[in-house]
Amino acid sequence: MAGLNQQELQYEQTLMYGHYTQDLGAYAKEEAARLREKSGRRPSATERSLSLENPDYDNGRCGKCCSCMLRCKKFLIACVGEDWIFLILLGLFMGLISWGMDYGIDYCLHAQKWVYMSLENNVFLQYLAWVTHAVVLITFSAGFTQLLGSHAVGSGIPEMKTILRGVVLKEYLTCKTFVAKVVSLTSALGSGMPLGKEGPFVHIACLCAAMLSRFMSVFGNVYQNKTRYIEMLSAASAVGLASCFAAPIGGVLFSIEATGTVFLVRNYWRGFLAATISALFFRILAVWDTEEETITALFKTRFSTDFPFDLKELLAFAVLGIASGILGALFVYLNRLIFEFIRNQNFIKNFFMKRRLLYPVLVTILISTLTFPPGFGQFMGSQLTQKESLLSFFDNRTWSKPGTAEDYDYPDFSYAWKHPQVNVFVTLGLFVFMKFWMSALAITMPVPCGSFIPTFVIGAAFGRLAGECMAAWFPDGIYSDGTVYPIVPGAYAVAGAAALSGAVSHTVSTAVIIFELTGQISYLLPVMIAVILANVVAQSFQPSLYDSMIKIKKLPYLPELGWGHNEKYNIRVKDFMTRDVTYITLNCCYRDLQDVLQAGDHLKTLALLKSSQSRILLGSIERVELQAVVSQQLGRPRRLEYLRERAAAKRKRQSVVSHLSSEGISQKATLEVRFQVNQVWSSTPRRTSLCLQRLHSIFCLEPSEKKAMAASLSLHDSSPRLQIEEWEESQLDEPVDFDNCKIEPAPFQLVEHTSLHKTHTMFSLLRLDHAYVTSIGRLIGMVSLKELQKAIDGSLEVKGAKVRPPMASLRDVRSSSCNIEIEATELHKLWDQYNSRSLPRKHLPSDSDEKS
Amino acid sequence: MAGLNQQELQYEQTLMYGHYTQDLGAYAKEEAARLREKSGRRPSATERSLSLENPDYDNGRCGKCCSCMLRCKKFLIACVGEDWIFLILLGLFMGLISWGMDYGIDYCLHAQKWVYMSLENNVFLQYLAWVTHAVVLITFSAGFTQLLGSHAVGSGIPEMKTILRGVVLKEYLTCKTFVAKVVSLTSALGSGMPLGKEGPFVHIACLCAAMLSRFMSVFGNVYQNKTRYIEMLSAASAVGLASCFAAPIGGVLFSIEATGTVFLVRNYWRGFLAATISALFFRILAVWDTEEETITALFKTRFSTDFPFDLKELLAFAVLGIASGILGALFVYLNRLIFEFIRNQNFIKNFFMKRRLLYPVLVTILISTLTFPPGFGQFMGSQLTQKESLLSFFDNRTWSKPGTAEDYDYPDFSYAWKHPQVNVFVTLGLFVFMKFWMSALAITMPVPCGSFIPTFVIGAAFGRLAGECMAAWFPDGIYSDGTVYPIVPGAYAVAGAAALSGAVSHTVSTAVIIFELTGQISYLLPVMIAVILANVVAQSFQPSLYDSMIKIKKLPYLPELGWGHNEKYNIRVKDFMTRDVTYITLNCCYRDLQDVLQAGDHLKTLALLKSSQSRILLGSIERVELQAVVSQQLGRPRRLEYLRERAAAKRKRQSVVSHLSSEGISQKATLEVRFQVNQVWSSTPRRTSLCLQRLHSIFCLEPSEKKAMAASLSLHDSSPRLQIEEWEESQLDEPVDFDNCKIEPAPFQLVEHTSLHKTHTMFSLLRLDHAYVTSIGRLIGMVSLKELQKAIDGSLEVKGAKVRPPMASLRDVRSSSCNIEIEATELHKLWDQYNSRSLPRKHLPSDSDEKS
Repeated sequence: MAGLNQQELQYEQTLMYGHYTQDLGAYAKEEAARLREKSGRRPSATERSLSLENPDYDNGRCGKCCSCMLRCKKFLIACVGEDWIFLILLGLFMGLISWGMDYGIDYCLHAQKWVYMSLENNVFLQYLAWVTHAVVLITFSAGFTQLLGSHAVGSGIPEMKTILRGVVLKEYLTCKTFVAKVVSLTSALGSGMPLGKEGPFVHIACLCAAMLSRFMSVFGNVYQNKTRYIEMLSAASAVGLASCFAAPIGGVLFSIEATGTVFLVRNYWRGFLAATISALFFRILAVWDTEEETITALFKTRFSTDFPFDLKELLAFAVLGIASGILGALFVYLNRLIFEFIRNQNFIKNFFMKRRLLYPVLVTILISTLTFPPGFGQFMGSQLTQKESLLSFFDNRTWSKPGTAEDYDYPDFSYAWKHPQVNVFVTLGLFVFMKFWMSALAITMPVPCGSFIPTFVIGAAFGRLAGECMAAWFPDGIYSDGTVYPIVPGAYAVAGAAALSGAVSHTVSTAVIIFELTGQISYLLPVMIAVILANVVAQSFQPSLYDSMIKIKKLPYLPELGWGHNEKYNIRVKDFMTRDVTYITLNCCYRDLQDVLQAGDHLKTLALLKSSQSRILLGSIERVELQAVVSQQLGRPRRLEYLRERAAAKRKRQSVVSHLSSEGISQKATLEVRFQVNQVWSSTPRRTSLCLQRLHSIFCLEPSEKKAMAASLSLHDSSPRLQIEEWEESQLDEPVDFDNCKIEPAPFQLVEHTSLHKTHTMFSLLRLDHAYVTSIGRLIGMVSLKELQKAIDGSLEVKGAKVRPPMASLRDVRSSSCNIEIEATELHKLWDQYNSRSLPRKHLPSDSDEKS
Repeated sequence: MAGLNQQELQYEQTLMYGHYTQDLGAYAKEEAARLREKSGRRPSATERSLSLENPDYDNGRCGKCCSCMLRCKKFLIACVGEDWIFLILLGLFMGLISWGMDYGIDYCLHAQKWVYMSLENNVFLQYLAWVTHAVVLITFSAGFTQLLGSHAVGSGIPEMKTILRGVVLKEYLTCKTFVAKVVSLTSALGSGMPLGKEGPFVHIACLCAAMLSRFMSVFGNVYQNKTRYIEMLSAASAVGLASCFAAPIGGVLFSIEATGTVFLVRNYWRGFLAATISALFFRILAVWDTEEETITALFKTRFSTDFPFDLKELLAFAVLGIASGILGALFVYLNRLIFEFIRNQNFIKNFFMKRRLLYPVLVTILISTLTFPPGFGQFMGSQLTQKESLLSFFDNRTWSKPGTAEDYDYPDFSYAWKHPQVNVFVTLGLFVFMKFWMSALAITMPVPCGSFIPTFVIGAAFGRLAGECMAAWFPDGIYSDGTVYPIVPGAYAVAGAAALSGAVSHTVSTAVIIFELTGQISYLLPVMIAVILANVVAQSFQPSLYDSMIKIKKLPYLPELGWGHNEKYNIRVKDFMTRDVTYITLNCCYRDLQDVLQAGDHLKTLALLKSSQSRILLGSIERVELQAVVSQQLGRPRRLEYLRERAAAKRKRQSVVSHLSSEGISQKATLEVRFQVNQVWSSTPRRTSLCLQRLHSIFCLEPSEKKAMAASLSLHDSSPRLQIEEWEESQLDEPVDFDNCKIEPAPFQLVEHTSLHKTHTMFSLLRLDHAYVTSIGRLIGMVSLKELQKAIDGSLEVKGAKVRPPMASLRDVRSSSCNIEIEATELHKLWDQYNSRSLPRKHLPSDSDEKS
């Protein structure tokens, strides 16, 4: 990038000062062309390889050898351009990062435990050490994130969902964010707060893929293709979870559910390949580090597989699923409540805005005080880390029943739950209750953190509680076919963990993740039932945590259609499209163009019509292109040209004064510069600001030039201002020359009769931002993400009387009878419609009435 | 359906004879409108419920009670319209069908075994019984399928893939096909041939969903929505596999991979819900039937989970995966070879075409003779059924090592493989070899059959063979960290089964299926590695078995893009689009319309342009619509009208003879009927034939009418034929009246610069059949499925010199540098292009040259 900038500057320097006396009209054209192509323009790999290919090797003796080497190199480069190389590299990197991060986190947690243990004599010092450790790490994490860019805050899944939806959020995929996320996440998780690793890891994997893609583009220009880039990102999001949990299948499925709205089966293998490689490498590293003997599941369970559960227990699992669903919805609600409370209370907001690190510190102190093991923490098993807690919940012994514990040679963490004063039910219940609000609070801290593991742990505890209750209810187990089978509370913990995390994230694939995590699949059906029911319940009450975050962050995202709302098939595009489309016509003049650009619409493309009368849609043009057109007409080069010709005319006049009279005015060279153009640019949206800055440098005069210009004007003319205005007008009245304008010749079109359901599908499938509504080639409206969002959120109101056009009720009866062919309409109807509504623009009162 | 037909007839009767003396011009319009709406037209649920809603209940005393009941009924109906009710019903049905079918199959297989065992004294009788059983059942299966409709033949997955792609293959989703498939499949599988249940079951589930959908449309018109119908079918295809294997997750994933090209995450839960319900019910039925004690996996394995495998074994699994991939590709190739041999050898083809049942009988005799247990079958474990073989392969004892077998209390089928004369390697090897070609041959029989289970069994045997080899190679197991761990050949069988079935079907989800089938997931990573490698290898050599079938059956399907062909990003629409688009213009006359319809294009829609000069695309019209327009102009009603007016004129002339001279000719009533219209219809594609038959009945005259007409013409005119022709001409020269024509106002449009990759994505995503290529509103070409198929299949040739337009090489360099914005083009280029190529139709030599 540095090279590019330098080249750019060089180029400008050379042209601006070296070629100053050149024909400036030609220069302006060149410049405009350069600007338009600049974004995509860089010496491509093809060109580079071409330049590599044909050097003058004939003059040396080793010519053949060199050309052979070159061919090898070319072949290698072609190989590296293949997808699978990229995916394997990505998998290896992510496995390594995940393992390294786990190492760091474990180290931090062990340090905390060690300090805590070595200060066993003094409770106060223990408390200080316990809290300080957490506060220092969280403060470092928050501070580091602040320092390097706040885009690393939070889980990153909402942002990835938005990016994979096709919206460009460049800042979220930079190298800086990567460093911030990796370092801050390690320290945040090392603090022992109830935070998760998986969400940020999805983001980290995408960051890694983006960086790798940028690096690999050296080897093949195919990495610059946008579609492919998105495909790679979606494979990377699968890698994130897989490398976290060593769960390749669950990772792929979770990433599809959590980040995608639509999924190309063609990409399936990409996710699987990368996820498997990363999971494998992650586990192999653990084996090499002699942590483990061989590759096994992360949270291995040892349930009996001969008779896993009785049919009657399915009912208990179903109830557990429903309860988890309610809890999950509550969690999302609570989390949003905290967010909104902090955001909407002005005093709190201002207070924390000034002292940005104070909020995480306060939250950390609160949580770590409550979890201090010798204090209140002893009633909720706080001496265990999240991982140890999970292992203990999945234990296949029954805690509430003393004496039934069989002897296994694996670590037993159940001591943490068997408090001498209170029984298991109380400790588990307290754990669920306290962790519930603590987790909802902790994930609002401005550090990189996920919510998956916290909800997973809470769900496991909740399931364990349910299981222990069942075991207490049927102390002898369930009688079936002459044999009595004991109840396994650990199995309920497994189902609970999957159900709650599924309910919070609105995914079904948590079931697969838990099978991969525990290494046992014998509870397939109970877990599936619990997860599905939890999803049903949670989805009826609340959006998923990620969608909730998207709403809070106001990211440009398309909400999902809820289930079971059949009226979505009956709402048509014409019910929610906007009829007030800003457009330009082929025969418009620069003034129209300027007006349209000043209108301050939020969309980055404008419709191009054949004429206002026919309204035939020819295509769409990007706002930036139009700005370039205006700048070319009124910009610096033309002013410079004017100055030059002015000076020439002045010299001429000094020699032959009488010659000037009428010639100059008719010449194109006397066209005047308008300073209000600057104003046009300032009203454009933020998105194009980068491009504008570049443009700015071209057509804004230096102060010295301005003075010279004013001087040249005032020299021979008594009313320069009047003249300027006159010429401005004449300039703006010229018809626009679209010749060098890049247009998109086939923007996506919908029909009035398209249903909301189909529109949503289209927008999801094609990752659209907006679509024009046409009727036999004529533009009659537009649907952008905004309108669609409104229509979906208020789909029930749309059915009400207010928003409905008068003919809607009639239409419903008809549409139900010919649902299948609803898209096709009789031609005469379309013509009639068109005739009755020829110019549905804002300034026409008839249409605005119809809208309101 | 009967009701509809009756109503139709009634309607016709009433109108044709009852209203005969009515104004026939108005009638013709009515008739045309009726025809257009007929397909979708049936009393919708809304209308019905409306008619139910407001009856005259006030005259009774129980009015309130009745209205309350009606409201309840309405609520219930609304409930039934919900998706989840449908999905649960579907799941229950399929669980029941699957269980019932398994019961039937088991009964058949047991009968075979019983007869075989009871004839133990006479080998010849045994042989006769063995072969007869198989032949009778297969013959019945083939005959029954023939009888009820040959659409039930084969697995049905290729057809479902095509249907879910958006192509309507109505015959595949009828009640008849359902009965044929269920009955024939049971008897085919009961014969003991190496056939599978899963493919047909996917089809059966879709049939069930289609029938249920038709039934449920009584309760809500939402079931008539096409999008929803497709969504339900795709959920149903997940149910098929889930109810077969009690593998809900694997079922969903397999159905996504095998039948879909694109997947809406929104539909995810549908598949999971239905699949879980069906799997659950399928297993619960088994428990109720006291087959099983509780719900467990179908092919439960009992591998040790403490140390499942050593890292070094991963290499062996990888090799197994690669070998399975090669085997899988070979299987697809062999299967296609057999198909093509039978199809292309004229003698064989004709021979078997005449004796349709002979082919399956011959194949059955061959296979059952070879597998006769006392004969050659003894060397390949033929006394075991497919299920027993699978169970034996997944056994966790090592066969090649005597004495290490631990004592378990589950059935041991290993005796079948331990032949006294030959060792285990030979029996396993023979089994793999023989079953390989037998299965490839068996699935060519014209009975409902799948290929999944056969390849699964062969893969398991192959894996077992590899495992036994490993165990023989390392008889003491693998030394690691001071401990020696034995090799588990059963685990290799598991990996082999997943890998081979994955290679044949090109799916990764077979890994998930096998975990659900065996109830153990501890071999997650080895199996994943084997499956992914098998897929990589198989996909590089051959298409999947389903795609191969699609090609053999020549179904209209879009092939997948292979992987790693980066040049797909550089092939543009203009390289493969057809410039010869048949279109009609707004100002065309009936003659043009007729010409276009006679041209015999294969597409069912035609482009509507504003005029031939501007070529602005206004929309597209279905062929059927246009045919209706022509029929209206030249059809029976007008002829009848003509007859009537003729008769009136005759009567008039008889009274005032001198009055006739010049008036009649100018009148519209004297327009003549053209009989060649019939010819138009006969040249149309088969698809619309149903509709045509209906149309036929309107505008073809009865013989008696013809006679009357000829008589009326010959009465007063000496040259009726000349007059007819003259009037035909005048009739055809009239401009077409499109007023009552339904047009699709926004057909899908592409741009010349769209890449092949993106076009493929669009076609997949939107299930397109064709797309118009436009340039600033002008039609310049068209891409249909056919062109796209050609472009993908010949993508490498497209890069060659022949197909490429001259500017392509220049474009490549440019496109690589501005890949991102390639869709947008400078306006002047588009205009220039348009000007230089104003009429790219067939009859212009310039364009046809460019094409060739």
